[in-house]
Amino acid sequence: MKLLEERILKDGEIFPGNILKVSSFLNHQIDVSLMLEMGKEVQRLFKEDKPTKILTVEASGIAIATAIGAVMGLPVLFAKKHASKNLSGDVYSSPVHSYTHGNDYNMIVEKRFLNSDERILIVDDFLAVGGALCGLIDITRQSGAHLCGCAIAIEKAFQGGGDKLRADGYRIESLAVIEKMDEGSIEFRI
Amino acid sequence: MKLLEERILKDGEIFPGNILKVSSFLNHQIDVSLMLEMGKEVQRLFKEDKPTKILTVEASGIAIATAIGAVMGLPVLFAKKHASKNLSGDVYSSPVHSYTHGNDYNMIVEKRFLNSDERILIVDDFLAVGGALCGLIDITRQSGAHLCGCAIAIEKAFQGGGDKLRADGYRIESLAVIEKMDEGSIEFRI
Repeated sequence: MKLLEERILKDGEIFPGNILKVSSFLNHQIDVSLMLEMGKEVQRLFKEDKPTKILTVEASGIAIATAIGAVMGLPVLFAKKHASKNLSGDVYSSPVHSYTHGNDYNMIVEKRFLNSDERILIVDDFLAVGGALCGLIDITRQSGAHLCGCAIAIEKAFQGGGDKLRADGYRIESLAVIEKMDEGSIEFRI
Repeated sequence: MKLLEERILKDGEIFPGNILKVSSFLNHQIDVSLMLEMGKEVQRLFKEDKPTKILTVEASGIAIATAIGAVMGLPVLFAKKHASKNLSGDVYSSPVHSYTHGNDYNMIVEKRFLNSDERILIVDDFLAVGGALCGLIDITRQSGAHLCGCAIAIEKAFQGGGDKLRADGYRIESLAVIEKMDEGSIEFRI
């Protein structure tokens, strides 16, 4: 998606350890109008699959998921990263290792919100190694719901998670796919 | 806001310890169309104050903040609850005690996203004792930005946070104010 690629080139910052900071528009400050444009693109890509619900994971996935939900007229369900006092009843859970934060957590969704008659569109802001995405796919599988596919804002292809999932047969649509990245430059997949 | 009050009566669940669960539409599963209606109401309440940015805190505040941002055409900035690898540079921070999770954390916002020429609308999904809201107000104050006021989805008035802040001179607009709550009933402020 041209608009997103241009924004990454303009405002993205590269840090050592393959870290791309897009805090100014995606995951700290949120450019809501850009999110809505991304929502329209995701609608174009997935409307024929007739998703009934969007599944994402807290925290920064919630913004783009809500914007896509607004455009497509769909409810959003976000997985929680740890059990809280307010989370009760039967849950689906999946263990995830976070590359960004260097920790492990359980991704949790209450069973009553994910049924086998649902058609799920998974959404997240970033895809690198694929830990969070694999957790969301695992939870969808556990529920017996149909998985329409995954819509990602930014994929760091050189970290391999996206292409591994594609090879496994999953539909992964990333709005910007970074093939190569170093201090001075960002190269997108054509 | 009638629509929200009716939804709380229909789908809210009360648990011991003054816990109101609204996981089915507000902070686990998100009814995006309800969020957009809430966005319109917040726009009606605050448009004359000409806010330039919405400030909220992760995680569940992000959904309603994004919806309000979509309706009002405003960017969203969400405070993070702990320093992560990806958060660098100068930050504003404020210590917060979470009543829900029973822990303490630092609320953090990068300074470059909050300037003194900004007009801030603070948004959150819940207001009870007011810990998170006081943190967001404190960060706004530190930045020198103008605070237009605070828009909250659900206020549990019997826990006192909202009325204390009103007595201190802050404008707090809650779309549903619960005056009293016990196992069998919920009473809204008229």
